[in-house]
Amino acid sequence: MKRSIIAAICHLCCYVSFSQTTSDYTELTDTKPFDDAIVWNKLPASPQISWGSTDMRYAKLSVPALSKVNTWKTKAWRGERVNMQAVIWTKTGMSDVRITVSDLKSKSSIIPSSAVKPSFVRYVMTDELNKNGRGACGNRENKADWDSSVVADVLYKYELKEIKANTAQPVWVQVWVPQTVKPDVYKGTLTVSGIGFNELKLNMEVQVSERELPLPDQWAFHLDLWQNPYAVARYHQVPLWSEAHFEAMRPVMKILADAGQKVITTTIMHKPWAGQTQDHFESMVSKVKKIDGTWSYDYTVFDKWVEFMMRLGIDQQINCYTLVPWALTFDYFDQATNRTRFVEAQPGDDAYDDYWGTFLKDFASHLRQKGWFERTAIAMDERKMEAMREAVKVIRKADADFKITLAGNFYPEIEPEMYDYCLAFNHNFPEETRQMREKAGKFSTYYTCCAEARPNTFTFSPPAEAAWIGWHAAHGNFDGYLRWAFNSWTLDPFRDSRFRTWAAGDCYLVYPFGYSSIRMERLIEGFQDYEKIRILRKEFTDKKDTAKLKKLEDAIALFAAENIWTRNAMDDVAHARKVLSSF
Amino acid sequence: MKRSIIAAICHLCCYVSFSQTTSDYTELTDTKPFDDAIVWNKLPASPQISWGSTDMRYAKLSVPALSKVNTWKTKAWRGERVNMQAVIWTKTGMSDVRITVSDLKSKSSIIPSSAVKPSFVRYVMTDELNKNGRGACGNRENKADWDSSVVADVLYKYELKEIKANTAQPVWVQVWVPQTVKPDVYKGTLTVSGIGFNELKLNMEVQVSERELPLPDQWAFHLDLWQNPYAVARYHQVPLWSEAHFEAMRPVMKILADAGQKVITTTIMHKPWAGQTQDHFESMVSKVKKIDGTWSYDYTVFDKWVEFMMRLGIDQQINCYTLVPWALTFDYFDQATNRTRFVEAQPGDDAYDDYWGTFLKDFASHLRQKGWFERTAIAMDERKMEAMREAVKVIRKADADFKITLAGNFYPEIEPEMYDYCLAFNHNFPEETRQMREKAGKFSTYYTCCAEARPNTFTFSPPAEAAWIGWHAAHGNFDGYLRWAFNSWTLDPFRDSRFRTWAAGDCYLVYPFGYSSIRMERLIEGFQDYEKIRILRKEFTDKKDTAKLKKLEDAIALFAAENIWTRNAMDDVAHARKVLSSF
Repeated sequence: MKRSIIAAICHLCCYVSFSQTTSDYTELTDTKPFDDAIVWNKLPASPQISWGSTDMRYAKLSVPALSKVNTWKTKAWRGERVNMQAVIWTKTGMSDVRITVSDLKSKSSIIPSSAVKPSFVRYVMTDELNKNGRGACGNRENKADWDSSVVADVLYKYELKEIKANTAQPVWVQVWVPQTVKPDVYKGTLTVSGIGFNELKLNMEVQVSERELPLPDQWAFHLDLWQNPYAVARYHQVPLWSEAHFEAMRPVMKILADAGQKVITTTIMHKPWAGQTQDHFESMVSKVKKIDGTWSYDYTVFDKWVEFMMRLGIDQQINCYTLVPWALTFDYFDQATNRTRFVEAQPGDDAYDDYWGTFLKDFASHLRQKGWFERTAIAMDERKMEAMREAVKVIRKADADFKITLAGNFYPEIEPEMYDYCLAFNHNFPEETRQMREKAGKFSTYYTCCAEARPNTFTFSPPAEAAWIGWHAAHGNFDGYLRWAFNSWTLDPFRDSRFRTWAAGDCYLVYPFGYSSIRMERLIEGFQDYEKIRILRKEFTDKKDTAKLKKLEDAIALFAAENIWTRNAMDDVAHARKVLSSF
Repeated sequence: MKRSIIAAICHLCCYVSFSQTTSDYTELTDTKPFDDAIVWNKLPASPQISWGSTDMRYAKLSVPALSKVNTWKTKAWRGERVNMQAVIWTKTGMSDVRITVSDLKSKSSIIPSSAVKPSFVRYVMTDELNKNGRGACGNRENKADWDSSVVADVLYKYELKEIKANTAQPVWVQVWVPQTVKPDVYKGTLTVSGIGFNELKLNMEVQVSERELPLPDQWAFHLDLWQNPYAVARYHQVPLWSEAHFEAMRPVMKILADAGQKVITTTIMHKPWAGQTQDHFESMVSKVKKIDGTWSYDYTVFDKWVEFMMRLGIDQQINCYTLVPWALTFDYFDQATNRTRFVEAQPGDDAYDDYWGTFLKDFASHLRQKGWFERTAIAMDERKMEAMREAVKVIRKADADFKITLAGNFYPEIEPEMYDYCLAFNHNFPEETRQMREKAGKFSTYYTCCAEARPNTFTFSPPAEAAWIGWHAAHGNFDGYLRWAFNSWTLDPFRDSRFRTWAAGDCYLVYPFGYSSIRMERLIEGFQDYEKIRILRKEFTDKKDTAKLKKLEDAIALFAAENIWTRNAMDDVAHARKVLSSF
């Protein structure tokens, strides 16, 4: 019975994705030039394999330019995740291909195979920067105007039905070194098996140091990648906030928790960003205007979402969008007309004050009951200063202790009000302000978006730029990083990362079902590096080891904002990480 | 502060009426031929006055064809309302015109002037029947296709700023004889005064019989004129269900209570009639689908409306529209998406059963708590029998004791389920069925709508046809009468009674601010006659006075449905009422 109801009421059903299960799918066709049969025919009949580089997005239909490397040797702190990429390439095709990994063993200990995660890397359609090379904002409705190609990004399963003839198939391998293992060298193998070819093998060797990286929820890095629950419900065609919806979100948000995310994205009004994503954000709070003119509020959805995220370990901050949305209309359910209606009002208007002032008082009371008030912030982004200043007044009037956050330009006039202030890339807090904020326990972070040509995490961005993000935070003494979209999926996120606005991949860093990406894992690499830098800076400073400190800071200095235009991100990240692992 | 909020959220404001007060207004211009100055100039300089007839809609710009009558003589039962119409006509114009009435005095008693209500009759734009003369249904968007004229209908105030030169101005006078007065002849005067003319005087003489008409709330006549609260809120530009809204409705619904109305029109879903009126009906119950799949219901609006009507004395039946609406989509507020959504389902579908079954159980429980269950009926109208049969199943499953009503054709299959069954004009219950229904305490009534060319209550209908309605009920032994629209006002109801569908006046019988109409008062006349007939039939039957009974029944027989085409309603009503007043 319930099924027919869901079908009858479903207004979301505009697009049915390749599958609601994790079964295989067909990638889109690349129209770029690739190696022809003459090139492929020069290869031996048997499939080839080699370790490659995590800096590369290997082309799908060309022979990879690799000198064969059979053993991956890397260093890692205990608790650290380390990544490597291998490539299989074949002129004959392979079926039922499966990757297995062994335990990694030292003389007296092991890193179990369960800590080693292999993924076939899959290809998604991408586009390019704006034609002038300056950023990637603006309308892209007409796809034909943009140069498109498929690029390796999705970190998919460890099984594939088929690798076609004359194809390269990258494999991403991540070892998450347990914090409990002894410092030692651990060795193991990766095996590719299947039908119609002999097993392929590669060696893995991880030298684990004594140093220990805390668990992600202990990281100082204040990470704020905005979540979009609405995209998950739509993609999976499940009712919003149903158990099925939460089950679908669990593996996706788990990636975020493992990345050290601190902030839960919540919405307290309809369309805070005027519906700019494929799936607009709805209010997680129902506001009801009763016929006697009083208001009542329902927090069921808000509470359930927050509690879900907290159980995943993302529990330090709840950001609530927003009092200053892109379109100044505010939804409520009108008991009299039995309809959703909208207040149109500017910050400073009486109607604005009535709508928000009344709500915020009730909200503060609800948050206190839940024990969440101290970690909740009313959040704003990229609005005019005057409007924000008026909004701050309304917030303070409702409850003087409300925390407030802002992502935008630097406004000294409202800076003192901001508990968590996130500046656009290449903007900086005056050093004195930054220090005062630090002493006051306030967060000072930065963000990138479509405005940055680089560093960025578009699906066509060089993977090293993702790692650059964490290093740039270390360089600017930022407390963390914000990105406006963790999973605002396109209609067909696995196959096509292009969207009607902004460069491809801007809207999401991870894929449905909890499949990660090269971009996301390289971002996490940078976040880990930030933590390691933080630990080492303290150690070297405490020990007054100026030589090591200088060596470290010299490496960090490469990541000044201006360097992104003059230096090679791949080389800089490789060099800096080498320095980091030398300590 | 509240004002700016109301302004900000007001979506109703498409038309601001002539006034939200009772100040004067200008009628629309008539384009029909009228008496020219030559005709008018033959009149004396001083304004003229005479009693006329309540059967006439006197033309506005022509000299009325009246032999002067100075004294209105009428008979009345105690408790009865009696109407008369006078006409003033002037070739010079009159200013600040005011009607006053004296007490009506007998030798030893009085009918106080407060029981005598004079009204200037005002003119509204009307149209005509369909071109083929058969009814008045269908689209009338193009007003130019219809012959239009202004007609006397509105019973307005007892003051007018101006009566222009060469104009006739009717005056409607109603005496509501108190039930307490002694049988006797009561005499008084009506005086017209103003600037620039000598007072005009007419005599009134009411012969009060010993017989007594019960108060309207005691009438047996089962009257069901559907109310539209939404039209009142829109016309007065007041928030729905606010105190101002109820204040605006009070004088309008008071007319209905005084007409002996028994039924409160309520809506339990969005747009039961697909929004066919100027102001669509909204649900008076909010249905919320929670994220756990359960439902919750809010009866605030429903309760407030029902209680308001009950306090006015309309308290015998609550009709709830509807399980079988014209468009099978059913609204609810979806907690997950924070939006109003719609279930699309047919009676018989699981989704229909879930939506309605769950609601009706809760509704029954709520009604029982309020003590209203026994007088509440789930109401349907003019739908396909199969759909209604399925709906009945759902109602019975939710609560076997729910009352059900239907206005439509006669379906023997579902007749036994109908507590209140209203047939279209000219349809009849088989006599055996009617008697069984009577014994079971069920109501068997009839209705007219746009389908009837006559008898009807369009603004152009001959006034006597309104009185015909009550007599037809007496003839067919119907328990009462239903009309689908008591006050579904047009955009500018005082000036223009035409609508985008149906003949002018079909949508409303009374005007804003509680101004009645010639149609409404003549309807009430028929309802009073029905009560008088009921009383006399019983008396003559009990007394076995076959002569009087025959005399009465002969008069009633004039009102067989088929007679409306062959006889003159005006003459028939006049004759029948004369017979009635002879007893």
